Amino acid sequence: MRGVGPSPPRCSSTSDCFLLSHLYKECGSDTTADYEKQEVKANTCRRDFARMRSVVIFYLCFLLSLCVGLACVVCVCIWNKQWRGGFAWDGSALQFNWHPVLMVTGMVVLYGNGVVLYRVPLTWGQNKLPWKLLHAGVLLLALLLSVLGLCAVFSFHNAKNIPHLYSLHSWIGICTAALFALQWAVGMAGFLVPWTPMSFRAQLKPVHVWMGTSILSLSIVSCISGINEKLFFVLKENTSETQPYSASPPEAVFGNTLGALIVAFGLVVVKILSNQKWQRPEPTPEDMAYRPVLQEDS
Amino acid sequence: MRGVGPSPPRCSSTSDCFLLSHLYKECGSDTTADYEKQEVKANTCRRDFARMRSVVIFYLCFLLSLCVGLACVVCVCIWNKQWRGGFAWDGSALQFNWHPVLMVTGMVVLYGNGVVLYRVPLTWGQNKLPWKLLHAGVLLLALLLSVLGLCAVFSFHNAKNIPHLYSLHSWIGICTAALFALQWAVGMAGFLVPWTPMSFRAQLKPVHVWMGTSILSLSIVSCISGINEKLFFVLKENTSETQPYSASPPEAVFGNTLGALIVAFGLVVVKILSNQKWQRPEPTPEDMAYRPVLQEDS
Repeated sequence: MRGVGPSPPRCSSTSDCFLLSHLYKECGSDTTADYEKQEVKANTCRRDFARMRSVVIFYLCFLLSLCVGLACVVCVCIWNKQWRGGFAWDGSALQFNWHPVLMVTGMVVLYGNGVVLYRVPLTWGQNKLPWKLLHAGVLLLALLLSVLGLCAVFSFHNAKNIPHLYSLHSWIGICTAALFALQWAVGMAGFLVPWTPMSFRAQLKPVHVWMGTSILSLSIVSCISGINEKLFFVLKENTSETQPYSASPPEAVFGNTLGALIVAFGLVVVKILSNQKWQRPEPTPEDMAYRPVLQEDS
Repeated sequence: MRGVGPSPPRCSSTSDCFLLSHLYKECGSDTTADYEKQEVKANTCRRDFARMRSVVIFYLCFLLSLCVGLACVVCVCIWNKQWRGGFAWDGSALQFNWHPVLMVTGMVVLYGNGVVLYRVPLTWGQNKLPWKLLHAGVLLLALLLSVLGLCAVFSFHNAKNIPHLYSLHSWIGICTAALFALQWAVGMAGFLVPWTPMSFRAQLKPVHVWMGTSILSLSIVSCISGINEKLFFVLKENTSETQPYSASPPEAVFGNTLGALIVAFGLVVVKILSNQKWQRPEPTPEDMAYRPVLQEDS
């Protein structure tokens, strides 16, 4: 039976009051219940409200990362199609154009979203295995695109007799790709192979999380230095085709905007990863005992 | 009275056993105490040992960040002194040389160490205020060096009639410097001005921590893209003075190594910042009540 109850629960901050009182009404107040019961109910409402707000903010950030990521992919494709002549696999500059497209798509956008996927609150109450497989699958696709992106540039260098791996961009880029491959392999061995001891998993987890964020940051370092380098290469003063980079022609502004979008994507993803409230709850001691992969929870 | 007690406390892992048994001896075992007391003592020893190990690892990482940071500063000075002709403030290329030195020293090394300073476990049991002031002071010095580094390049551009802020490197760099200045000002207003409400501080803290790490990452993005750009600028094929960048002359390898050191510094600092065990413990609810700056704890 619903009726007029006692005064609504106290709010922890003024801004919560409107929504909290709304939730309070939703949860209901029983005139027959004593004050303690109402307090417990009010506390439950507060917790539900805080959890709901946290989940809503997560999904807004996730949506933002998807949108900014999509914008990065669209922009890098437009840049190489519109201003750099499009794509081919014939050892020409058109083959090189696959390099930025595949690296931005694989090592930044797919990688970032593949990492964030594992934090989706929807998955917390469910069996982890399908989400682990999805996480590993998306990251494998990201790794394959990255390797293809490296093949594009190595093959282009071979065709043009350009030395490999001499610039700082290439040093950071190749190390990032190697770390990414290592992280994927160690992650598979550590978290998906059923006979890996739980104690090893527990020790590996913080390293895996730190390396995951570091690889994204290094990918962004590589992309920004690469786009900057490419724009200096192609927008030179002594060519009649284009204005120099320093005159800020449309291609320069577009390329810089692509770089700014990549940085914005990285900031959103790192914000999601750094929020402790959005980390999957730690397994209980009971979960830490060894369980085969099809039943495991951690 | 000390004597031979029962068997030492169980170790959580084999590797802990030696040090744990040593600690157990240090803490002592009373034959008159009952089993429960011994268990409590053993648990205290375990906690002390875990805390001590965590603190030792922190100081090793901090020492590493200091050493790698120092190596970055030494290398960027050597590069500009040895290969780029040294320093001046006369609108020439020698004036430009202050730019990488001041940005690496201010926006990366001093900034990174200034941020980590605030996590030193030694400070946890003490009044926060002197450490806050040291944190703010080191970061102010970092900000001043960065602004001086920007003045060096703006003044050089003016002298040579080079447009400002056209490259992606400059876009990311100027935004990073602006965010750094904003973060410092908001940090001062939020955490050092005595009449700032504690509720505002509590809301600001996670944003301040996230922005702090993001600014370091953006500084590294700016430095790597800048060093890469500079090496392409100065190591050209058509100049007789040097070999081209693609031939990997000593300057190229040295510059790339400097870039790799900067990235390594960033990884160490981010590792320190991301370790939740090394975060200053949250204040208790009693501490959250407003207290003037000279007594405050949060």
